Amino acid sequence: MKVKAAVAHAPQQRLTIEQVDLEGPKAGEVLVEIKATSVCHTDAYTLSGADPEGLFPAILGHEGAGIVAEVGPEVKSLKPGDRVIPLYVPECRHCKFCLSGRTNLCQAIRKTQGQGMMPDGTSRFSVGGTRLYHYMGTSTFSNYTVVPEIALAKIREDAPLDKVCLIGCGVTTGIGAVINTAKVRVGDNVVVFGLGAVGLNVIQGARLSGANMIVGVDINPGKKAIAEKLGMTHFVNPKEVEGDLVPYLVDLTDGGADYAFECIGNVNVMRQALECCHKGWGTCVIVGVAGAGEEISTRPFQLVTGRTWKGTAFGGVKGRTELPKIVDWYMDGKIILDDFITQVMPIEEINTAFELMEEGKAIRSVLTF
Amino acid sequence: MKVKAAVAHAPQQRLTIEQVDLEGPKAGEVLVEIKATSVCHTDAYTLSGADPEGLFPAILGHEGAGIVAEVGPEVKSLKPGDRVIPLYVPECRHCKFCLSGRTNLCQAIRKTQGQGMMPDGTSRFSVGGTRLYHYMGTSTFSNYTVVPEIALAKIREDAPLDKVCLIGCGVTTGIGAVINTAKVRVGDNVVVFGLGAVGLNVIQGARLSGANMIVGVDINPGKKAIAEKLGMTHFVNPKEVEGDLVPYLVDLTDGGADYAFECIGNVNVMRQALECCHKGWGTCVIVGVAGAGEEISTRPFQLVTGRTWKGTAFGGVKGRTELPKIVDWYMDGKIILDDFITQVMPIEEINTAFELMEEGKAIRSVLTF
Repeated sequence: MKVKAAVAHAPQQRLTIEQVDLEGPKAGEVLVEIKATSVCHTDAYTLSGADPEGLFPAILGHEGAGIVAEVGPEVKSLKPGDRVIPLYVPECRHCKFCLSGRTNLCQAIRKTQGQGMMPDGTSRFSVGGTRLYHYMGTSTFSNYTVVPEIALAKIREDAPLDKVCLIGCGVTTGIGAVINTAKVRVGDNVVVFGLGAVGLNVIQGARLSGANMIVGVDINPGKKAIAEKLGMTHFVNPKEVEGDLVPYLVDLTDGGADYAFECIGNVNVMRQALECCHKGWGTCVIVGVAGAGEEISTRPFQLVTGRTWKGTAFGGVKGRTELPKIVDWYMDGKIILDDFITQVMPIEEINTAFELMEEGKAIRSVLTF
Repeated sequence: MKVKAAVAHAPQQRLTIEQVDLEGPKAGEVLVEIKATSVCHTDAYTLSGADPEGLFPAILGHEGAGIVAEVGPEVKSLKPGDRVIPLYVPECRHCKFCLSGRTNLCQAIRKTQGQGMMPDGTSRFSVGGTRLYHYMGTSTFSNYTVVPEIALAKIREDAPLDKVCLIGCGVTTGIGAVINTAKVRVGDNVVVFGLGAVGLNVIQGARLSGANMIVGVDINPGKKAIAEKLGMTHFVNPKEVEGDLVPYLVDLTDGGADYAFECIGNVNVMRQALECCHKGWGTCVIVGVAGAGEEISTRPFQLVTGRTWKGTAFGGVKGRTELPKIVDWYMDGKIILDDFITQVMPIEEINTAFELMEEGKAIRSVLTF
């Protein structure tokens, strides 16, 4: 079938809206009509050419929502008309990882997903006879896409897709980092580095968890108002702190953060996030994605004196099982999504959405089809 | 009173056995007759001069056991005749750390302990009018020493002090790292780097915890027999591994260690210990103490894909509360101590004990008075 997609032909080039060919779903696959998608820094990272695993030409996009249009053979858990959110971290419920009870990092289709292919090793997208790569197994920058059944979370029918598409990445990553990975407890002091979409969702995850102090750290004071609305109790602009940031934060939190979250992807900040943690028990959770080859470092004394350094991907959330609950929280008014959506525009304006994000003028632009 | 002590006058000098002066216990302090002490790498590290916090002249020693000879004013939990093990990590049961329920790192007397002093800021030891520093709050290389009440674990009367002195450091550090810090579960796969006293006790802690594979890694094949006796199931000599050690260990453990322990103090091995952990959930616990200023590093991807990097001091054990239970385990035959004691000698031969340890010829030498 012919579908409308934003094609990334090569790194650092603008996306072009084109009519491309999409094959129907094969065994275990599902055709999804994407109703809304947002743009995330990871899309921009890949488009920049800095991602060593980036493949071109490709259909990017991984934060979307849509409706099942057709299911391939052997698909049992979904039917046409179901509302779904594509999952770049699938949940097969059969692999060692899914069954471990210790992680959300299902490995069932990791290899082919990393190769820009469906699980059978081929692509469903092409244009003029040239194969296009899938991206993160989701490729939501297209009005129709094919996704493996195990990479689709079925959500309630009354959820507005142009809002809950954000739950496909940033919202879940931030809230999950707090609830699943850190397991913040009532009364804990939390420090969040970087108040982009993920950091802001860490803040609302911390609020949900009953945290005491929720300290937001960002060099952009324009983030303060939205962060406070979401639950931030203290704002720290590192540019306005005299002396070192780490002892400042340790003092502010009466000994250090119980939990600190790095939501930028800056390896130097990852060290600060660890070292501002409370001696004896403070835990730093790395949420941001660093550049290829970059390394974090610290003195092991930081760990031996009781600090823990860990990380999270997709907020530790098992998508098919847990993501529908996050949609419920939104529908029940427990979490905020609408304020993250700073722009809504048609897919044709996707390059503008990238520009706004890179200029720091958007939290999330939602693209509609 | 006049006591017999091994005095460290300066870095890199041999200890000298001397008659030194010891003041009686002040408020909250206890005079202990040390019956046995062992020598640990930390004593050697300080004596080498590499420890930036090392103070001289001092009475070293922190792994000992003795009998209460006299208690100072306000001491309520101990009386003359009680058997005790001095604790370089005290347990005041009143500070924020003790009350947190999250750490064993009591901070009540940390400052003065680091200054080589008793909690009132003065020393009880002197020789010829010259003040001698206390060491780690314990100074067990003396037939009598003064220790704060909060830094003494009272143990059962029938425990042989020339054996259970080992519980004052290495045994507790190793077993506690497994039980308290890692919380190894039945069926987990464990990798232990470095089969000195601490690493060997990690092995027996892993055995106690019902671990599945217990892989010991050491370049000294002479450690194999004792490690197997304690529970090691697989021995890996890095010198005999072709190619990189990390993928070798990942293969051996079918995907990586559930828990890996670094018991050497080598920052490069600390990285290997992290990176040999299982994707999704593997946890590396740093037990060894690195040299001053040395740093650990890795790609944050290691953490974002589910690995955790943490550390432990004194095995996460709250000494007054938990250490008596470890003595019970020894008395009940649940853990082995006797095999760690490779030499027994009078305190007069303490320099020989240091030499044997540095040559790798001793696991522990026990010195008697």
